[in-house]
Amino acid sequence: MSDEPKQNGDGGEPVESLLETIDGPADLHDLDDAQLQQVAQEMRTYIIDTIGQIGGHFGANLGTCELTVALHSLLESPRDKILWDVGHQSYPHKILTGRRDELPTIRQYEGLAPFCSIAESEHDIMGAGHASTSIGYAVGLKEAMRKGIGVDGRVAAVIGDGALTGGVAYEALHAAGGLQTPIVIVLNDNGMSISPNVGALSRYFSRIRLNPRLYHAREDFEDRLTKLPLGMGRRIERLGPEIKAAIKAYWAPGLFFEELDLAYMGAVDGHDVGALRRALTEAFEADRPVVVHVNTVKGKGFEPAEANGLASMEEWHAAKPNSIVNGLPTTAEKPALKPVPVQETDSPEGIERLEKPPAPGSPPQYTKVFADALVAEAERDERVIGITAAMAGGTGLQKLADERPEQYYDVGIAEQNAVLLASGLALQGAKPVCAIYSTFLQRAFDQIVHDVCLQELDVTFAMDRAGLVGDDGPTHHGAFDVSYFRPIPNVVLMAPRDEAMLVHMLHTAIAHEGPAAVRYPRGAAEGVALPTEPELVPIGKGEVLAEGRGVALLGYGYGVHVALEAAAILADHGVQATVADARFAKPLDGELAERLARDHDLLVTIEENVLPGGFGAAVLEHLEDAFAAGPGERARVLRVGLPDRYVTHGKPDLLRAEVGLTGQSVADRVLAATPSAQPIAR
Amino acid sequence: MSDEPKQNGDGGEPVESLLETIDGPADLHDLDDAQLQQVAQEMRTYIIDTIGQIGGHFGANLGTCELTVALHSLLESPRDKILWDVGHQSYPHKILTGRRDELPTIRQYEGLAPFCSIAESEHDIMGAGHASTSIGYAVGLKEAMRKGIGVDGRVAAVIGDGALTGGVAYEALHAAGGLQTPIVIVLNDNGMSISPNVGALSRYFSRIRLNPRLYHAREDFEDRLTKLPLGMGRRIERLGPEIKAAIKAYWAPGLFFEELDLAYMGAVDGHDVGALRRALTEAFEADRPVVVHVNTVKGKGFEPAEANGLASMEEWHAAKPNSIVNGLPTTAEKPALKPVPVQETDSPEGIERLEKPPAPGSPPQYTKVFADALVAEAERDERVIGITAAMAGGTGLQKLADERPEQYYDVGIAEQNAVLLASGLALQGAKPVCAIYSTFLQRAFDQIVHDVCLQELDVTFAMDRAGLVGDDGPTHHGAFDVSYFRPIPNVVLMAPRDEAMLVHMLHTAIAHEGPAAVRYPRGAAEGVALPTEPELVPIGKGEVLAEGRGVALLGYGYGVHVALEAAAILADHGVQATVADARFAKPLDGELAERLARDHDLLVTIEENVLPGGFGAAVLEHLEDAFAAGPGERARVLRVGLPDRYVTHGKPDLLRAEVGLTGQSVADRVLAATPSAQPIAR
Repeated sequence: MSDEPKQNGDGGEPVESLLETIDGPADLHDLDDAQLQQVAQEMRTYIIDTIGQIGGHFGANLGTCELTVALHSLLESPRDKILWDVGHQSYPHKILTGRRDELPTIRQYEGLAPFCSIAESEHDIMGAGHASTSIGYAVGLKEAMRKGIGVDGRVAAVIGDGALTGGVAYEALHAAGGLQTPIVIVLNDNGMSISPNVGALSRYFSRIRLNPRLYHAREDFEDRLTKLPLGMGRRIERLGPEIKAAIKAYWAPGLFFEELDLAYMGAVDGHDVGALRRALTEAFEADRPVVVHVNTVKGKGFEPAEANGLASMEEWHAAKPNSIVNGLPTTAEKPALKPVPVQETDSPEGIERLEKPPAPGSPPQYTKVFADALVAEAERDERVIGITAAMAGGTGLQKLADERPEQYYDVGIAEQNAVLLASGLALQGAKPVCAIYSTFLQRAFDQIVHDVCLQELDVTFAMDRAGLVGDDGPTHHGAFDVSYFRPIPNVVLMAPRDEAMLVHMLHTAIAHEGPAAVRYPRGAAEGVALPTEPELVPIGKGEVLAEGRGVALLGYGYGVHVALEAAAILADHGVQATVADARFAKPLDGELAERLARDHDLLVTIEENVLPGGFGAAVLEHLEDAFAAGPGERARVLRVGLPDRYVTHGKPDLLRAEVGLTGQSVADRVLAATPSAQPIAR
Repeated sequence: MSDEPKQNGDGGEPVESLLETIDGPADLHDLDDAQLQQVAQEMRTYIIDTIGQIGGHFGANLGTCELTVALHSLLESPRDKILWDVGHQSYPHKILTGRRDELPTIRQYEGLAPFCSIAESEHDIMGAGHASTSIGYAVGLKEAMRKGIGVDGRVAAVIGDGALTGGVAYEALHAAGGLQTPIVIVLNDNGMSISPNVGALSRYFSRIRLNPRLYHAREDFEDRLTKLPLGMGRRIERLGPEIKAAIKAYWAPGLFFEELDLAYMGAVDGHDVGALRRALTEAFEADRPVVVHVNTVKGKGFEPAEANGLASMEEWHAAKPNSIVNGLPTTAEKPALKPVPVQETDSPEGIERLEKPPAPGSPPQYTKVFADALVAEAERDERVIGITAAMAGGTGLQKLADERPEQYYDVGIAEQNAVLLASGLALQGAKPVCAIYSTFLQRAFDQIVHDVCLQELDVTFAMDRAGLVGDDGPTHHGAFDVSYFRPIPNVVLMAPRDEAMLVHMLHTAIAHEGPAAVRYPRGAAEGVALPTEPELVPIGKGEVLAEGRGVALLGYGYGVHVALEAAAILADHGVQATVADARFAKPLDGELAERLARDHDLLVTIEENVLPGGFGAAVLEHLEDAFAAGPGERARVLRVGLPDRYVTHGKPDLLRAEVGLTGQSVADRVLAATPSAQPIAR
């Protein structure tokens, strides 16, 4: 590297800022390597300062400053397309493409999107938030260009080493090699996905990284080969051309890619703008798919992230608000400048490590309750095995990994295989628990239908982040799982109304000999006492929490929380609503639903899932069948849930207010729907 | 091979049958290589004779006779586990595991399952029907054994080269290498998936197959290295140990696997029982994951399948009933012994090539209508691009491939990447059409939610085989797509009632600037005239086909066919039912639904999809919202569709009768539900 980045963001020296002159990628085109290196470093400082204050993805963005500068200095975006896999490393890209001054709004309601967003900028070519998709997009874009569709341009996909464990990335590599689509795939290798990488590919990249001899470019080696003593060289030739090719190929470390007919260049120092530009220039000139292997350091330039190896890097994948002041982390002892309520201290998706105990009296996070309960289940029964897909921190499974490593698997970013691994384990008599966020589990939909439920295997799905997740927005909301699970035969679907019920339901799902799924929301739980021993919840049985008349509120999961809030507000208006917890979406407690429908004028179903095909639909389906003599004999059903559109990013409370998933909103709708209820009940 | 198989199945020579003595795998354990080879050959003959008569998967099973014998002769099933990826190559396995005499019932209603089935035999360890899953299962099984769960045993997964293009297989390879799980992965390489393989991996395997030098086992090469002239050898040593390793590694052809930390052995002649047994014995003794690369010939021993290369092999992936008599194919001129109605001549899933024109007057297959319509669309607009996932024949896209190869992609067994490729193409302004069976498209559910619909990309999904597909059974029924698509925002869902409407709807979906999906059933269409020019169907508008009173039948897709049948029967009972075609499940024609509900006493929704969350649920959801004053003002809704369970295999007519998706069944239910309707209407 030509220029060691400064450690922190004091920015006190009166160095002329180059970054402030960059209003679009074209402004980089006339700068030389040293100036570009400076721009990268200024961005790094800006990100540390900004994200340290407002919170957001952190480590990955510090790792891509030079790479982003190098790409934009060579390409003409948006005619040339730069695709950022996942998009959580795209802050430098946003800064360089006209959004520098808006960075402080990122991840906030109505602010910049947390990932790339097609709607936000013409430079954001694809939107994403789930890993491993960029190569597939790149192949499609370039193939269309080759056919003369749209304006021709160069296409680069930047993908992390962790994302390469996802099967769809491999499918796309395979397609790129097969079609010989001339795209550049930048392998941004920081030795980490979100958790430290697992699996063979990670070891493979480590071998490349750890063997300094393998850093030599292929050309260097070819030189050395030709400089062998003459006799030796001739004899090697006599062994046949394969030998020479073999030696050459093996010396260069990209065989995995070369076998798939992708050219390979690497490894390049990802923090040296000049080296990056030279490698990328060559790659863009090749008329075939090229993998440029770039070594970056996650958290580069922020000493606390770099200092303690992998653990620190995972910790600093994202920064919490006010976690950095003057370029230095605020310590645990030192209170953050502006303390925020517990529900808002969540770090971004995918990187949330188990919190230190919250202030006394604060409810625990659902994730933590699940993590503790799963460890307890694993202690009770050695057949219980937790599986995560590169989300040990976010799902809470790190605790199981630490305390019962023999009962734990991390398959990497590979949700499909997480479910197949669970299937195999279950076939042998184990009791696997797949802990995967609602939004990511949809990647394994086919395996759930075909490999678990059709085979009636004893797999438990623990779906954290079911419902609106907040800052990460539409790619991460768990808005669909009730709807995508409900059509599947043989599965039991449940959702707890509080953390005590989560403990019982996890126990119930594990005990149930067949597929079962438990969904629970992100964030803080309700603050109820946790049971000392979990109990079995009778499958398909709901529970009435309060008896009233006229109006019944039937909640599912977080919907019960909303129902209780609404009931309190309604009580102030003289309406004593019945409140019930359905507990199961499948099998539905039909008897309860019928009773509520028969005994009330209005039945309100409340769920944090889209309405089409969701829990409310289940209630409707059942009631229509049950009241065969005609729907006139039952209450009207008002379904409350997420709307049939993608919901934006922002704090969950703001989003829930936006979509009407609050006690107040439900109460208002009830009062509007039953004008007579109010005076009668008074 | 020690014994060239006989060509046909005359079996006239009075050679003592060994196969008849094999009632279970243990009966193989005392036989020698030559006897085992004979068993394999007898199986081949038996399969040719049986499947040639009854129809079924064919080519793959002829390819695995020796492999199956070799595996079962070495292993102790079911303690040792043999996993057959997909399962369509498991007929020899079924024969050897006690189901020999039941083979003639395979794929028939209440007969043997078309794939492996956990419920059918203790030797069928996993059930499947979708490719690429066996390695994931194998890792799970063996990992559980390593933990002492269940009885320990050896685990082998047999997977085709085509199935290795599926991302989940790669995820599992990666896991096996990462965990060093001691399983044996038999790569059954016949150079084909169902269609000839595409992509880089296929070329990679071809290089191995085509270079005879690469057939040498690693040990042979090591010998040669050490036999180099002394000085030469020393100098190579002096270049460093990497060089020697490099030469050795390159010479052996398994680098792709070795890079993932899987040991590699190969390639072994897959039709030589002795060679297979030697290789497998060694592989099972290794205490790490081993890939045994086996070269087989699809259709081995059946001359017409072997003769003309890849095209023949694809044709003979499956055999139609009565397609082989006395070991020879029946020709087009020679009528089959027992002609069967058009709807029953479908060859098995995934292998159906475009039929020759049916008898004059017979309706065409939906697949053919789609294939022709897509070619016409592609001719009209060069931005129209068809994408298949290894199903060029089954989806009809072969016609596009033949006539407009520039507007066609086959991504291999990689549904996820098919959708990403489409996303990239759409981003650049193309109009991609993903033609993927309903059951396989569910593999790309996340990409549909996250990469197409969230981004509002202009991708069309053409879902063939929506509904009950027949002989292939529960893994292949398109039972869920309405339910899994309906919760997704921004998508248009439609289903044609006949082949003319399919032409219009494909045109409409392509013209619509956003995500749209068209589902249509397997088999013969209705026999209506095809339009000369396709028309745009107004999105979200249904159509009343017949005005009646009392009862309204609202069909979706194939449901309209059932509705019309039911209406005819009802008319005989004096009930003049209204019949309507909803055409769209999303957006629903709410106005039509409301009108039907308001003007009738009973509204019957009919769809070939599971009831939970399906089309009928959409109608219910809409009506409950629309009749806000109370459901009493509208007709009762009776939803007819597929039940909330997996439906078995068998001819579609049998299955539809079983689940009540027939005109008669609907008419019966209507008459039972409206006892008053009958006399009043008379």
